[in-house]
Amino acid sequence: MNLELVTIGTELLLGFTVDTNGAFAGKALARAGVRVVRRTSVGDEPAAIADAVRGALARTRAVLTTGGLGPTRDDMTKKVIAKLFGAPLDFDESIWNALLERYARFKRTPSESNRSQAEVPRNATVLPNRWGTAPGLWLEGQAGLVIMLPGVPLEMQKLLDHEVVPRLAARAGETVIMSSVVRTTAVAESNVAERVKVAEDEIAPLTLAYLPGLEGVDLRLTAWNLSRPEAETRLATAAMRLKLLIGDNVYGEQNDDLAALLLDRCRKAGIRVAVAESCTGGIVGQRITAVPGCSAVFVGGVIAYSNELKRDLLGVSTELLARHGAVSAEVAEAMARGAIDRFHVEAAVSVTGIAGPDGGTEEKPVGTVWFAFAIGAQIETVRAILPGTREEIRERAAQYALYGLWLRLPK
Amino acid sequence: MNLELVTIGTELLLGFTVDTNGAFAGKALARAGVRVVRRTSVGDEPAAIADAVRGALARTRAVLTTGGLGPTRDDMTKKVIAKLFGAPLDFDESIWNALLERYARFKRTPSESNRSQAEVPRNATVLPNRWGTAPGLWLEGQAGLVIMLPGVPLEMQKLLDHEVVPRLAARAGETVIMSSVVRTTAVAESNVAERVKVAEDEIAPLTLAYLPGLEGVDLRLTAWNLSRPEAETRLATAAMRLKLLIGDNVYGEQNDDLAALLLDRCRKAGIRVAVAESCTGGIVGQRITAVPGCSAVFVGGVIAYSNELKRDLLGVSTELLARHGAVSAEVAEAMARGAIDRFHVEAAVSVTGIAGPDGGTEEKPVGTVWFAFAIGAQIETVRAILPGTREEIRERAAQYALYGLWLRLPK
Repeated sequence: MNLELVTIGTELLLGFTVDTNGAFAGKALARAGVRVVRRTSVGDEPAAIADAVRGALARTRAVLTTGGLGPTRDDMTKKVIAKLFGAPLDFDESIWNALLERYARFKRTPSESNRSQAEVPRNATVLPNRWGTAPGLWLEGQAGLVIMLPGVPLEMQKLLDHEVVPRLAARAGETVIMSSVVRTTAVAESNVAERVKVAEDEIAPLTLAYLPGLEGVDLRLTAWNLSRPEAETRLATAAMRLKLLIGDNVYGEQNDDLAALLLDRCRKAGIRVAVAESCTGGIVGQRITAVPGCSAVFVGGVIAYSNELKRDLLGVSTELLARHGAVSAEVAEAMARGAIDRFHVEAAVSVTGIAGPDGGTEEKPVGTVWFAFAIGAQIETVRAILPGTREEIRERAAQYALYGLWLRLPK
Repeated sequence: MNLELVTIGTELLLGFTVDTNGAFAGKALARAGVRVVRRTSVGDEPAAIADAVRGALARTRAVLTTGGLGPTRDDMTKKVIAKLFGAPLDFDESIWNALLERYARFKRTPSESNRSQAEVPRNATVLPNRWGTAPGLWLEGQAGLVIMLPGVPLEMQKLLDHEVVPRLAARAGETVIMSSVVRTTAVAESNVAERVKVAEDEIAPLTLAYLPGLEGVDLRLTAWNLSRPEAETRLATAAMRLKLLIGDNVYGEQNDDLAALLLDRCRKAGIRVAVAESCTGGIVGQRITAVPGCSAVFVGGVIAYSNELKRDLLGVSTELLARHGAVSAEVAEAMARGAIDRFHVEAAVSVTGIAGPDGGTEEKPVGTVWFAFAIGAQIETVRAILPGTREEIRERAAQYALYGLWLRLPK
C-alpha cells in the first residue's frame, strides 16, 4: 500500500523546525507494510495545503497529514480537508469534555480558541489523543483516505503507533517493507563498503544503503514488499553475512545504543565503571546516564576540563602535564588510572584531546584525541585523529570511548 | 522569488535520516529573499524524482534539489535532471582532477564509480565544492532553474552559503523574508502567549509563531517580503516589545546559546565556574564545553551519579543523604558548596533529580529536580518538576541549571 505524507507548518519551510515527524512516520508506516512514496511540506496556507493533499490523493489515494490541529489561527488543516471532502465541521461534545478534563488536570482552563479543537469533519473517525489536546482524525471518502495527526512529535508518534499503524496494517495486506540495520563504528564508510562489496549482489532483492553518522556507519538492508516471513529470513541471513565480512567494527543492530551495550557487558562482568573526561566535557557521562538503570554499574566521573582538576581530582602529576601536555598517552593513562584508584571501580575510560577550532599544532592537529581504557590493572592507550567540527569531534570521541571499553570487556 | 525544494533519498522517506537539509536550506534561502513554498521528499527512483521536479518547475520555475550526487548506483539526480532538460552528460576533466587531488590528500585513490561524479549536464554551471567530492550544479533552461546540491549536510550548507545564496540574492530583487527570534526559557508556552497577547495585533504585518523546545519557548517574528530596511526596523521594534512584555524569562535572541551567555557573564564578572551534576550525567558540562574558549572560565566539575561520589568528590555527608535523600535542597546545596570549596571557583551549579522512568514517588515524582546556585558565599536552591521523557527531563534540567546561574550573575 502506497501513501504520501503532507507535513504542514510554515516553520518547517522557513527551517526553524526540523521535520522529525516525517522521519518517524516513514519508519512507523514501513513497519505496517505501508510505503511512503513522497513527502511534501507546505506552509500554513489553505491553498497550498489543499493543492498538496489533492495532488497526493490523486497519486495514491492515501494521505497522512501532520500539523495544523492547534487552537491558533494558523491551524487550518481540518477546515481545508473538510472542504476538500465537502464535509461540514461538527462540534463534538465528548472531545470538548475530554479537553476540559485534561486542562483541569494541569489546573488550567481552556480559552475560546480551544473550541475549534473539538470540531470534527462529518463522518470522520476520531483517534483519541491521550498525550495532548487535539485528537487525530481518519476521514475516508470518494477522493480517498486522509489521516490527520497533530504536529507535536510525541503526540504524533503515539497516535501513529496506537491508532494509525494498527488500522493501516489491517488493510495493507500480506507484504511488508522491512529494514534491518547493522551498526558499525571506528571504521570509514569506504573501508566498510570495500569489505562488504563481495556480498552486494548476493543479497538481492534486498537493497543496501550506507548511513554514515557521528556514531559510525550504519548499513541498512531493506526488503521491498516481500511476505513478512520471507523478509525476516532474508534480512537475518544478509545481516549475518555483513557482520562476518565486517568483523569487530560491528557493535550492534537496529537502534542498539553502544552505551547500553557497554553497560550490559559491565553488568555481566560484575564490574563498575567511571569516566574521566576532558575535551568531551561530559558527553561520555551523558551517553551512559541516558540509559535507564545505569546506576547499577556507573558511579559517575569527572569533567577534568582544566589541568588543575586533572591534578586535584585524578592525581595527574604536574610533571606529566608539563612534559607531555594534557593531550598525550601519558596523561590519558594517568587520568584513567586515577579514576580507578579514587572512585573504587574496576574499569575506567579517559578522553583528552583537541576539539578545536583552535588549539591545534603540527604535531597535534585539531581532532587529536588520546583515550585510555583501564580494566583492573590493565591499561591501553589509543590515539585517534577525528574529523569534523568541534561538536562532531567531541561526539565521535565519546562514541570511541564507549567502543574501546566495550571491545575490551568480555562478551 | 518563490522556489521549491526537492530532497532526494529513500532513507529520508523510510525515516532513517531526518531531513535537516530542508530546514537549513529554508533558512538560508529566506535570508536571500527567496521564499520556499513547498518541499518535496522522494526516494531514489528516477520516475519519482522527475515527477517531483517537473511539478515544482511548473509551479515556480525554480527548484533546488539535494542528494543523489554520490558515486553509487542509487545516485541518479544528474541523469534525471539532464534528461528533463534534454541535455547530455559531459565528462569534466577539471572536476576529475580536483577529485583526484582531494583523494590524494587523504591518501586514497578513487574507484571507477567515482567517475560519474565528474559528469556535468551540458550548459550547467559548476559550483565548486571545497568540502566534499561532488560539485554542485546550476542548470537553467526553458523549463526554469534547477540547482543540484549534495545531500551531505555540511557540503550542502557550505555550497548554499558560498555559491547559491549570493547568486539567488542577486536575482530575488529588493524584498526579503526575514525572521527574528526571541528566546525564552523556564516559562510555559501558554503563559508566555498570555503575556504577549496584547501585542499580537500591533505587530502586523509581522507574524508571530511559538516554537516550544527543550531549551524553552522561542518566539519567531517574520517579515514577509518587505524591503530589507523596513523588515529590520519592524522586527527590531516588535522584538523589543515582546521582550518588555515577557520579562526575565527572555535570555537571548536568534541562535543565542544560554551556555555561551552564561560564560560571557562569568568572564565579565571575572569568576570561574564548576558543575556538580547527578541526574544530568554530564549534559551541563557538555553544554558549557560546546562553547569554544570556555576554558577561560570553566574548570570542569563532577558527574556525581552515585551517592559515594557525592560524598567522596563533593563532601556531601552521609547523614544528609540518609536524612533527606539525594534529591533534596540540602544535598543540592551541599553539592554546590562542595564544588566551590574544592575546585577553587567562585560560582557553581548543582543538579540532582529523578529523571525516570523509574524512581518516582508520591512525594518526589519523576521530573523532580533540585538545583543549587552558588556564587561566592551566597547559595539558593530551587525545585522544579520538569515534564517529558527521561532525556527531555535531563535536557530541560541542564537548561534550567544554566539559566538559574546566568540569571543570578550581573548583566
